[in-house]
Amino acid sequence: MSDLVRMSITMDRELADRLDSLLEGGRNENRSEFIRDMIRCRLVEREWEQDQEVLGTITIVYDHHSSDVNRRLTHLQHEIHDSILATTHVHLTHELCAEVIIARGKASGIKQFADAVRQQKGILHTAFSPSTLGNVGS
Amino acid sequence: MSDLVRMSITMDRELADRLDSLLEGGRNENRSEFIRDMIRCRLVEREWEQDQEVLGTITIVYDHHSSDVNRRLTHLQHEIHDSILATTHVHLTHELCAEVIIARGKASGIKQFADAVRQQKGILHTAFSPSTLGNVGS
Amino acid sequence: MSDLVRMSITMDRELADRLDSLLEGGRNENRSEFIRDMIRCRLVEREWEQDQEVLGTITIVYDHHSSDVNRRLTHLQHEIHDSILATTHVHLTHELCAEVIIARGKASGIKQFADAVRQQKGILHTAFSPSTLGNVGS
Amino acid sequence: MSDLVRMSITMDRELADRLDSLLEGGRNENRSEFIRDMIRCRLVEREWEQDQEVLGTITIVYDHHSSDVNRRLTHLQHEIHDSILATTHVHLTHELCAEVIIARGKASGIKQFADAVRQQKGILHTAFSPSTLGNVGS
Repeated sequence: MSDLVRMSITMDRELADRLDSLLEGGRNENRSEFIRDMIRCRLVEREWEQDQEVLGTITIVYDHHSSDVNRRLTHLQHEIHDSILATTHVHLTHELCAEVIIARGKASGIKQFADAVRQQKGILHTAFSPSTLGNVGS
Repeated sequence: MSDLVRMSITMDRELADRLDSLLEGGRNENRSEFIRDMIRCRLVEREWEQDQEVLGTITIVYDHHSSDVNRRLTHLQHEIHDSILATTHVHLTHELCAEVIIARGKASGIKQFADAVRQQKGILHTAFSPSTLGNVGS
Repeated sequence: MSDLVRMSITMDRELADRLDSLLEGGRNENRSEFIRDMIRCRLVEREWEQDQEVLGTITIVYDHHSSDVNRRLTHLQHEIHDSILATTHVHLTHELCAEVIIARGKASGIKQFADAVRQQKGILHTAFSPSTLGNVGS
Repeated sequence: MSDLVRMSITMDRELADRLDSLLEGGRNENRSEFIRDMIRCRLVEREWEQDQEVLGTITIVYDHHSSDVNRRLTHLQHEIHDSILATTHVHLTHELCAEVIIARGKASGIKQFADAVRQQKGILHTAFSPSTLGNVGS
């Protein structure tokens, strides 16, 4: 799809050996993949800092017996329904559910939505994963 | 389900006012809910530090045209199939997919799984959300 | 200095017990102090997000034998000398030094300075602590 | 001091271009230095995860008028005086001070010390920088 660039990196043998120790631990296929992965991580961080179009995942744990938390969650999602790609629901216990919401859109919009969700009564925990629409190169 | 405890907290008016400014910004229902939420966040962090049974979400963006990344992802998931509650797949572009994996189990096991996934060739980005099975009180 | 506000917080006994378990572990003097501390943490995060006047600490580890890293560090510091409150230098080994720079000013300016430092050749590691000028109440 | 290793990294032109955009923004001297810096960051994270001998900086903001916070801070520092390399004190306002403590030792010991400090009454904020004794290669 895109032509390949080859770049040459120098480092002390000590640093190279320690790099390889990271690879062994993580079963990385090779140094190139590990380094490309670190670069893409930085690029995704920058996408979020610069409020670009991104992907974000919000993981919610809540008590579905709590007064109308379901209704309020649904209401919040409909306010940004254009941005929500999918919602997955799992049952944890008799009382508790987890719900994972996958959203795409401006970074600031996704963060605002996550904040609004976090502060609903009946929600026990909210976790947030900043990800990417993938236009970072490979 | 559980009896209620009432506790009395003192602070300078300046800190109380600033607390309220956080609530307004975040549309928190009230100070109690905001403070309970902060406490539960700390408890969930401790669950992960102490390697307890937790919930975790892994968000992956990958190129499904890349050589057998699908097969390798499926293989990795089957290695810990007891821990995976659900996997949701969305199509981002012609080439790119996002996949969100919801796992429960020991914190260390979920982190190892996420690391193994991150280092597969063809995967552009991995994001990780530490969450909880919810046994933190409400 | 400032008048005191007393607020009443309710929670399940289960959450209250778990809160107390955090206090025991951390030898917190009491619930009030722990909760005030969490509120101030959030306020300081917001100061940085809103690019207010803040305090920041940059910890650098470098090889002082490396070509003119000292000169370049000094040069960078003089560019923002109005913002630098103090610099502390410790000797780690024959080759390596640590330097801690305490800066006050706009959050964005301190972060830019830290980035410029991080990317100097000869610098092995840079760590960054976002702190506050303390106008958060107590 | 140590012999040099040259490694060859391949990536799409798109990723290479985006890497260069990170360098321009940060005035990095070149791709090699940027990549070495990312590797060392990962190595330092691992030092902390594996509870190795490390360097850590604790930044404290406190009200020195608060009842005996000075005495308690001094007491805490003397408990681990072998680990404390230097303490720097700056005056922020009539009431407030910042103090930066540079410590070396086992990662877990430094974190425990920081926790103990954080929970002292009179301390408004504590920030923590995990750093390294520098044995990561260059």
